[in-house]
Amino acid sequence: MVVDFIFDVGSPNAYFAWKVLPGIAARTGAEVRIVPCLLGGIFKATGNQAPMIAFGNIRNKMAYEMLETRRFIRDHGLDAFQMNPHFPVNTLLMMRMAAAAEIDGGLEPLADAFLHFMWESGRKMDDPDVVRAALAEKGFDADRLMARAQEPDAKARLMSNTESAVERGAFGIPTFFVGEEMFFGKNTLRDVEAEILRQRG
Amino acid sequence: MVVDFIFDVGSPNAYFAWKVLPGIAARTGAEVRIVPCLLGGIFKATGNQAPMIAFGNIRNKMAYEMLETRRFIRDHGLDAFQMNPHFPVNTLLMMRMAAAAEIDGGLEPLADAFLHFMWESGRKMDDPDVVRAALAEKGFDADRLMARAQEPDAKARLMSNTESAVERGAFGIPTFFVGEEMFFGKNTLRDVEAEILRQRG
Repeated sequence: MVVDFIFDVGSPNAYFAWKVLPGIAARTGAEVRIVPCLLGGIFKATGNQAPMIAFGNIRNKMAYEMLETRRFIRDHGLDAFQMNPHFPVNTLLMMRMAAAAEIDGGLEPLADAFLHFMWESGRKMDDPDVVRAALAEKGFDADRLMARAQEPDAKARLMSNTESAVERGAFGIPTFFVGEEMFFGKNTLRDVEAEILRQRG
Repeated sequence: MVVDFIFDVGSPNAYFAWKVLPGIAARTGAEVRIVPCLLGGIFKATGNQAPMIAFGNIRNKMAYEMLETRRFIRDHGLDAFQMNPHFPVNTLLMMRMAAAAEIDGGLEPLADAFLHFMWESGRKMDDPDVVRAALAEKGFDADRLMARAQEPDAKARLMSNTESAVERGAFGIPTFFVGEEMFFGKNTLRDVEAEILRQRG
């Protein structure tokens, strides 16, 4: 059993999902497969918008979104989270590196590091110098990874992943596929777990 | 323990919630208190819109909303549901009757009947003649209830319920309050149940 995790490191909800998915994998034996995508590309292809833009003018709505986030943090003990002061952060460089790592191997530790720097340590991760320093700090070969991100196959992979996600039904992040059953949003993770068990029979 | 259920019979999601709430009440001992409101009034006060309008132009989004509804129907065995062919139905008359019944007593069976006619039997419940016939069919004193809906206290109650719901944080239906903890949407009903248990300690 594989869960495809439609992923862009720029979404705090991707961070939250990432912190909860290992428990689901451990309990069900399912494998989580990160699919590097560009949230901006998904929005462009679907006409969707970030919650802050779509809901910013609706009274009570963003306050409730924030309440749901506080509850999720409380329920899962995610106290290391902090909102990135540079939000929204352009994730093109990071996500091209992630797409290259999907091809070359090593995606999971790289995504984990990006999520740490974005959502636990508040770095300005659209600045190449900040990215280079952050990766070096974690022992990655930053120069190699950054050069790799600029190669055509990495760029093409990120684009095709994004297009495929939309073709399968995605309109935002985090999106999960259990087989072809789609689930959107961090609050559906318990449904993802139930669906894995259902399909396994 | 009381759960306030911010309610307008015009929302299919209010029907779904209504079918699941009795189980929560039975398991927790909490009481469900229907609060008749006008969804159109909540939308006007908050700038929110019906999903069909807000999400209609977003690729994949309404398809996912419908998928979530099919899953909810499956998971809770709600096979009696059918989409109302006259949707959207103006609920002003019904909700004024509900507000009068909140004052006079008898709200719960009346709401239950309205939900049946709207979401199991496809009646055009913004037509006073259809409403009268439907209520008579269920043994209600239809003429008395319809006259009562036009009295000032019924109209005022519906308006003040709607304003209070928005003051407390609502922006749509179904909304639930467990104490002052707010939950929005039928998919939060399991959180409502957990919150009742948490507050009861």
